[in-house]
Amino acid sequence: MIKINKAACVGGGVIGGGWIARFLLAGIDVDVFDPHPEASRIVGEVIANAERAYAMLTGAPLPPRGKLTFCKTLEEAVVDADWIQESVPERLDLKRNVLTQIDAACRPDALIGSSTSGLLPTDLQRDMQFPDRLFVAHPYNPVYLLPLVEIVGGEKTSHATIKAAMEKLPPIGMKGVHIAKEIEAFVGDRLLEALWREALWLIHDDICTVETLDDVIRYSFGLRWAQMGLFQTYRIAGGEAGMRHFLAQFGPCLAWPWTKLTDVVDLDDALVEKIGQQSDDQAEGRSIRELERIRDENLTGILQALKAGDGGKGWGAGKLLKDFEHSLWAGAKAAEQPKTSGPLRLVDTKVSPAWVDYNGHMTEHRYLQVFGDTTDALLRLIGAGLSYVEAGHSYYTVETHIRHLGEAKLGQAIYATCQLLSVDEKRLHVFHSICDAASGEVLATGEQMLLHVDSNAGKAVPAPPEILAEAKAIAEAHASLPAPDGAGRHVGQRKQG
Amino acid sequence: MIKINKAACVGGGVIGGGWIARFLLAGIDVDVFDPHPEASRIVGEVIANAERAYAMLTGAPLPPRGKLTFCKTLEEAVVDADWIQESVPERLDLKRNVLTQIDAACRPDALIGSSTSGLLPTDLQRDMQFPDRLFVAHPYNPVYLLPLVEIVGGEKTSHATIKAAMEKLPPIGMKGVHIAKEIEAFVGDRLLEALWREALWLIHDDICTVETLDDVIRYSFGLRWAQMGLFQTYRIAGGEAGMRHFLAQFGPCLAWPWTKLTDVVDLDDALVEKIGQQSDDQAEGRSIRELERIRDENLTGILQALKAGDGGKGWGAGKLLKDFEHSLWAGAKAAEQPKTSGPLRLVDTKVSPAWVDYNGHMTEHRYLQVFGDTTDALLRLIGAGLSYVEAGHSYYTVETHIRHLGEAKLGQAIYATCQLLSVDEKRLHVFHSICDAASGEVLATGEQMLLHVDSNAGKAVPAPPEILAEAKAIAEAHASLPAPDGAGRHVGQRKQG
Repeated sequence: MIKINKAACVGGGVIGGGWIARFLLAGIDVDVFDPHPEASRIVGEVIANAERAYAMLTGAPLPPRGKLTFCKTLEEAVVDADWIQESVPERLDLKRNVLTQIDAACRPDALIGSSTSGLLPTDLQRDMQFPDRLFVAHPYNPVYLLPLVEIVGGEKTSHATIKAAMEKLPPIGMKGVHIAKEIEAFVGDRLLEALWREALWLIHDDICTVETLDDVIRYSFGLRWAQMGLFQTYRIAGGEAGMRHFLAQFGPCLAWPWTKLTDVVDLDDALVEKIGQQSDDQAEGRSIRELERIRDENLTGILQALKAGDGGKGWGAGKLLKDFEHSLWAGAKAAEQPKTSGPLRLVDTKVSPAWVDYNGHMTEHRYLQVFGDTTDALLRLIGAGLSYVEAGHSYYTVETHIRHLGEAKLGQAIYATCQLLSVDEKRLHVFHSICDAASGEVLATGEQMLLHVDSNAGKAVPAPPEILAEAKAIAEAHASLPAPDGAGRHVGQRKQG
Repeated sequence: MIKINKAACVGGGVIGGGWIARFLLAGIDVDVFDPHPEASRIVGEVIANAERAYAMLTGAPLPPRGKLTFCKTLEEAVVDADWIQESVPERLDLKRNVLTQIDAACRPDALIGSSTSGLLPTDLQRDMQFPDRLFVAHPYNPVYLLPLVEIVGGEKTSHATIKAAMEKLPPIGMKGVHIAKEIEAFVGDRLLEALWREALWLIHDDICTVETLDDVIRYSFGLRWAQMGLFQTYRIAGGEAGMRHFLAQFGPCLAWPWTKLTDVVDLDDALVEKIGQQSDDQAEGRSIRELERIRDENLTGILQALKAGDGGKGWGAGKLLKDFEHSLWAGAKAAEQPKTSGPLRLVDTKVSPAWVDYNGHMTEHRYLQVFGDTTDALLRLIGAGLSYVEAGHSYYTVETHIRHLGEAKLGQAIYATCQLLSVDEKRLHVFHSICDAASGEVLATGEQMLLHVDSNAGKAVPAPPEILAEAKAIAEAHASLPAPDGAGRHVGQRKQG
């Protein structure tokens, strides 16, 4: 994958801050220019939200966070960046002016993306000296979790620019879709605006409240659209008769009375106040921060669910997450911890909302999930990672013994260590500990016996010499460690037993 | 909760079939009338999909499936039902005729719901003798998974009818929203139609393909809308400045060029063919059955993710699922398995798509999840279920030993049994087995030590006599069973050890 080396963000509001977080968490340094006096506070809050969300989203090893620098001038911020993202307020004159300044100050090979949600790239690039490198890169809030970026070129944008922009998004976990023709508001905001216009009429005419309208969406087609869009959903609804038949049936509805409400409602004071009041009622006293937290937890849960889609291969945004994690693992391999004489610290994570019971305690089986992640990290370390598994061999767990010594709570930072107790041709005997990251207190231990197998034949076979050598080197380094407290115990055994 | 005793469905297509599946899986008998020669095949396919989806959706005990009867006449089908759902094709004259027949044949206190997606209840009830009991109950496909039902009354519909209809939906896992005023297409289809109209223009004008348009939705706002709707999402986007400020900012956009595309596109042969071809490309050769399977797996995964939302309390459609499961557990308690002399069979489930790795094998920690569910079922049996836990006491797992003896695969039916090895004041020592449902082969065993605790004080305390009595009765019945193979073992112990 083609990575961005250095990014610059001009404008650091909620959208600009979301881009900054995306870049930083992908290990990319970011220089920021935003003259707003509160810019660094606002950006800091978005980054904090993003870090919290990523810790819940994935157990894959994020690269060391990029360096964030607030610059005094626009020129200073953009001078050595290879991706510059403009996210200033939505006024054509302002954006043109800012883009022209960027154009004059940046490297000749830099890509310049605009976060505009509606202005035409042809209009934006009018005054630029090198307009071929300007494109629209329109993201969705929260930018650090929603992967979509609409990529739209203007009349003077080069094909090479579009191609390069599309290629640089997957390494930061994003999905570029190229919109073939530029129109105002592109595709996403067109669709949103159409639905929004209709929604305003429904509230204006007291057909329902904003809460009822939101419930209609989130208990029905919102669930559908998180995983398939509009057309694929209707393809299924059409059944065996096919999409063409479905459309022929649907055609007449377009002329029914429900499609006539296409006027634009006057968003006057009375309507603003009605919606404001209904929205207050709907929030039930929850602050924006609390709603953000709930939203981000829900989004991470949905993305994780979609990662398991299509029989474990991943579907849509979940497939994208899976691919992103693979690239993280691949990137982390070279940097992985060297063998030391102590137990290996192999996993660092936070307790995700999907992992807790209604009391906020980490659920029993999630401890085993973390132990499984620890084993996976060990296997990568000795050369038995994903590509080895895909080639037909693997280590299977045959036995596990877990002791619960403390409790991990929602959001708590934890880490896991591994002590390799013994290695032979076919077996690895490991002892893991899950610890509180702040105090080092051991919360649980997990002892496991793993068997090297030929997955296709479904039977145990000796591991190859290169893997055995790696494993034995660790085991020898660990041989001088004391036997861990709790190893070799059976369930119910007395402490002095 | 107020339950439906007997349901009747007039019309058994995809929507009618979805209603039938909802009723049957909630334990309600359904009489069906549909003169279509293929009705029983179509309904059978929908029920098969629904049963597959429910097995993945929840581990809670579904009641015995209701009895399905295809009737020769409409009168026969509706005569003793207390909820009658009409789902015939979308023509006013046909629906009026069918509803008048239902009206003449059914019980005076029956509720009559129409699945119409757009016709006005006032128009539907015009010719009925008792129009006060007619309402619109508009569901969304797939009806067995999407919980929303729009409840809309006509001029002659009574308040009592609306109230009764709203109350009878939660026990079948559905969410009624009452639409205050009747308009054509109600709320959901208004919103869908507005977006659909815009989407057709975008395809017509070659701005993007159907696949790109679907990607725009499912990688961005579709993810948002699965958990919060339109207004709550914008409330967050508005930040601390508030909803009113957000609307004031958003107002001008309504007059921008992107809102002018409100004409109705002509869905002519050329556009139908263009969409049909693009939809074929998007499907990449997947059949409708395969797409349905993927959709249902995704939806169950999303619903499960939302069940963990809001710090484990459940959010939106996930909260509804959680409440539905509680009602299932409560309903199952009375019917729960009597103590027998053999191990107790406490869990029956299927391997959910969220539980498997990319090879389609059940992931290690999901075995522990099933063992945890088995323990929970035992605790309910001895009186230490959810209400006991909420009152401040619980059993915590302190130690677990798992042996993997075989493999469970995606979709495989499995069950879990529990043998209670010993009981004392503070401890329960249990031995669980996960077995293949077809052959009874043991796939994994899980031995656990549980400690009775005061959750607030965070320390072990003796269990109360009534719980001890229940537990001891089971342990005594199990005392004569042979010690299970594998109990008392430590990791790495030899078979004859």
